[in-house]
Amino acid sequence: MKIVIVGGVAGGASAAARARRLSEEAQIVLFERGPDVSFANCGLPYYIGGEIVERGKLLVTTPERLRTRFKLDVRTRTVIEAIDRTAKTVRARDLATGRQYQETYDKLILAPGAAPLRPPIPGIDLPGVFTLRNLQDVDRIRGRIDEGVKRAVIVGAGFIGLELAEGLVRRGVATTLVELQGQVLPPFDEEMTTPLEEHLAAKGVTLLLGESAEGFEVSPDGLDVRLKSGRRLSAQLVILGVGVRPENKLAVESGLDVGPRGGIRVNEHLQTGDPDIYAVGDAIEVIDLVTGDPTQVPLAGPANRQGRIAADHIFGRPSRYRGTQGTAIVRVFDKTAAMTGASEKTLRRARRAYRKVYIHPAHHAGYYPGAEPMSIKLLFDPETGRVLGSQIVGGAGVDKRIDVLAIAIAAEMTVYDLEEMELAYSPQYGSAKDPINMAGFVAAGLLRGDHPQIDVETLLDGPTDQQPFILDVRTPEEFAQGHIQGAVNIPVDELRDRLAEVPPNQDLAVYCQVGQRGYLATRILLQNGFRAVNVGGGYKTYQLFRPVTAAPGRPSSG
Amino acid sequence: MKIVIVGGVAGGASAAARARRLSEEAQIVLFERGPDVSFANCGLPYYIGGEIVERGKLLVTTPERLRTRFKLDVRTRTVIEAIDRTAKTVRARDLATGRQYQETYDKLILAPGAAPLRPPIPGIDLPGVFTLRNLQDVDRIRGRIDEGVKRAVIVGAGFIGLELAEGLVRRGVATTLVELQGQVLPPFDEEMTTPLEEHLAAKGVTLLLGESAEGFEVSPDGLDVRLKSGRRLSAQLVILGVGVRPENKLAVESGLDVGPRGGIRVNEHLQTGDPDIYAVGDAIEVIDLVTGDPTQVPLAGPANRQGRIAADHIFGRPSRYRGTQGTAIVRVFDKTAAMTGASEKTLRRARRAYRKVYIHPAHHAGYYPGAEPMSIKLLFDPETGRVLGSQIVGGAGVDKRIDVLAIAIAAEMTVYDLEEMELAYSPQYGSAKDPINMAGFVAAGLLRGDHPQIDVETLLDGPTDQQPFILDVRTPEEFAQGHIQGAVNIPVDELRDRLAEVPPNQDLAVYCQVGQRGYLATRILLQNGFRAVNVGGGYKTYQLFRPVTAAPGRPSSG
Repeated sequence: MKIVIVGGVAGGASAAARARRLSEEAQIVLFERGPDVSFANCGLPYYIGGEIVERGKLLVTTPERLRTRFKLDVRTRTVIEAIDRTAKTVRARDLATGRQYQETYDKLILAPGAAPLRPPIPGIDLPGVFTLRNLQDVDRIRGRIDEGVKRAVIVGAGFIGLELAEGLVRRGVATTLVELQGQVLPPFDEEMTTPLEEHLAAKGVTLLLGESAEGFEVSPDGLDVRLKSGRRLSAQLVILGVGVRPENKLAVESGLDVGPRGGIRVNEHLQTGDPDIYAVGDAIEVIDLVTGDPTQVPLAGPANRQGRIAADHIFGRPSRYRGTQGTAIVRVFDKTAAMTGASEKTLRRARRAYRKVYIHPAHHAGYYPGAEPMSIKLLFDPETGRVLGSQIVGGAGVDKRIDVLAIAIAAEMTVYDLEEMELAYSPQYGSAKDPINMAGFVAAGLLRGDHPQIDVETLLDGPTDQQPFILDVRTPEEFAQGHIQGAVNIPVDELRDRLAEVPPNQDLAVYCQVGQRGYLATRILLQNGFRAVNVGGGYKTYQLFRPVTAAPGRPSSG
Repeated sequence: MKIVIVGGVAGGASAAARARRLSEEAQIVLFERGPDVSFANCGLPYYIGGEIVERGKLLVTTPERLRTRFKLDVRTRTVIEAIDRTAKTVRARDLATGRQYQETYDKLILAPGAAPLRPPIPGIDLPGVFTLRNLQDVDRIRGRIDEGVKRAVIVGAGFIGLELAEGLVRRGVATTLVELQGQVLPPFDEEMTTPLEEHLAAKGVTLLLGESAEGFEVSPDGLDVRLKSGRRLSAQLVILGVGVRPENKLAVESGLDVGPRGGIRVNEHLQTGDPDIYAVGDAIEVIDLVTGDPTQVPLAGPANRQGRIAADHIFGRPSRYRGTQGTAIVRVFDKTAAMTGASEKTLRRARRAYRKVYIHPAHHAGYYPGAEPMSIKLLFDPETGRVLGSQIVGGAGVDKRIDVLAIAIAAEMTVYDLEEMELAYSPQYGSAKDPINMAGFVAAGLLRGDHPQIDVETLLDGPTDQQPFILDVRTPEEFAQGHIQGAVNIPVDELRDRLAEVPPNQDLAVYCQVGQRGYLATRILLQNGFRAVNVGGGYKTYQLFRPVTAAPGRPSSG
């Protein structure tokens, strides 16, 4: 058996190591265009920011190590230029010598990754305009910073854009983030990014949302970035993080099928249309586990597992890839944002029915010092209660809850299951009613009809003549610090005695700070014959939709 | 509907609040023997240790708050002395006035909790010998410490014993932990407690394992603790943490059924044999979710959920309690120990077939600074691969992995599922191959036969004449720092060239530091016709069974 692998980073290196474990006899040739194999892709921004000090730490393994330990034929700085599927050969070119040669294969694994997009705008190729993919890019960007950059512009506020912004701020560079969409982290639902935008602004990052770069020009001070709005920014460093494009050229030229977004199409065993050619990693189209639709999810975890599965299948094992649920996490200075499963916008696009709840718990028992707040959005099926997706933004403990929900989604659990989950409780780590249980209680209460809720958007965007009577059941002090316009304040602890003040024949929308007192008030009102609903997630959710201070450059939505 | 609840801490308070949400009309009477309701039981050791500074923080709610917010009839300092099931009344006694009276009920919920055991040994009632259950105990213990305690003895090294030891050390008290069993944290398997015992010793706690207190005597210096071994300890403070006993007196006297360990027997709706009497919390017998056997698990999380379920069922809902899986966690100074599902000793006792693996991963990517090690033990069904239990000891990230595995157990997932789990990866939070995936890979490899393993115990305790040839595949430097007796060192990277040095017709046991290189070496050997198995979890697992330095007082097992 001779296996040829194109691409030696996450998926390719995993496939090679797995293949060797399965067979000492196989001949395994690993081609990599760059000089490095298996480097720590996700660590690059932290080396730029100086948190990772040693460059060598980014090299998870080396070509030499792969040769010695795994008996691999590793050929770096070599590109594969063509595949002859009939002859089962690839044409390789050694970048150092220019030498071209054929290599035969029994099985071929394509793991070429995805390349950063470089949109065709004027000046995109000027020195000083970078993208970030590998250690050579990192060396160039660090070199620039070490020369003394004062101001930088990052185009694109996705995961990598935010990580770079933090790194640059750490290095003392005044940083502006330009993002086409009206929010940072476009895979998230917009309201969940509000705390991140406020936090970025507080940390000194200038955010320009709903804005884009239309050109770069050399200026006496470095570069001028021309924006769609007409505004110009001056910088000595520009990094583009506007997305990636699957490296599908080889596949397309070989007649292999690609999806509408360019991902190489594979079956559940990760075989392309040609059963002797597998494809893994950022270059492939995967099935979204929740919606069942094809999608493109460039993530290191799935790439590694796909490499393993392809190698397994080559050696006759029935391994299959189950699909991707898009579990992702990013640290944004002192906060963490994470998601798993479908977002609300994905569900809308897929025309899939859903309900949602928001909760704002502390990450551990409030009586123990150091509890940090988080906001959890949970999306679930309105009929079965099956968990469809979640997004969490907060401090400590966000990563734990998203992983727990990732498993719940993979296990096709429902919100009723979340109510019952027995999680580890000691006051440093959680609560007797963990945030996961609380999300289950609120969601299940909604589905059972115990806890009728109204979404903040519905409340705010509904027709004015049908506006409900808005009842704020917090304390007068909380009310005085800010409330929903038009709300009347009756604290929950006085509600039973002041029911006469509540209009009997009108729809009531009740809210408190996070939803709990509002829930009790709703129960009191319902059982006294009123028509009440609770504003899901309370005033804190309202603030996600109506930021108190709009982030700079963000069009105020209130 | 008139509901009477006996006990106002975790389960009782939850039941009361839930009942009120379900019915504004119900009359709800909450009896509590002590002066406080719903206090933070799990926070008591941290108030003693001074981490929680304000006593008021321990009061999750107050009788006044419950009266106002939930319209509850709260009667503290009142004991229920008898139940008349025919008349459906309870006899109450007001501890302040001594007044006795009858109270009728439609539904009765027993939530009396469990009382700390006070074994009948001489001197147990001397001043200076304490147990810890409520705020009054805490006040007494703190008072004693504030008077200037130099030395303390804690009898029992379970969860509360360890938490108290840490608190006392924080307060500058020289602390000795006396434990009857040969390990701390008896619910854990012994080898998993080795790192904790070493850590406790490093933090200055004197551990006396396999030892017990046989008497307490007044001495000029405070108290003398007489031990089974004949040794005597001098202390000014003794705290007993040797377990709890369900408060079942009322239930037993009312003719309700209790289990062999004293827990009140209930059905899945938490009804006792009398359908009008429910019981919840630490006083009841529950079903072990994994083994299906009745057991006793005093935990705050289950108690809270049980309270909710009892209230639901009273109001005609089909809520049922699924059973308890014993998810628990404890911080031990800078380490964390956590478990979920069945331990190996529980599985043995239940005569249930199982397999196990150990892994020793870092809590996040090694290339990012601050990765902390952990040891994971995973127990699973040998046929189906279903996850049966796990124990994890380490630093950061232990709580996350135990919660993920708790969900996996609840979802009846297998080790094959763990291989595929898509968890959140960014280098601050995890790895592209998360510890959970790694545990799945190793366990699934074992079940598939790709990765034959031998347990450390089997290797060490097997008959001497059938001892395998032990091959250490680490580097010579690692070998020199300590190895399994009799092992021969051939580094994995040289193994393919030195196969001639390996005996061809003998069983081989291969090991490295954590199992990964040993796995590759095993694969190389197997494919070259040798009879090789990998020592599961490598030298690190060996060290769990054969501590380098036995903790003081622990009989050396090597």
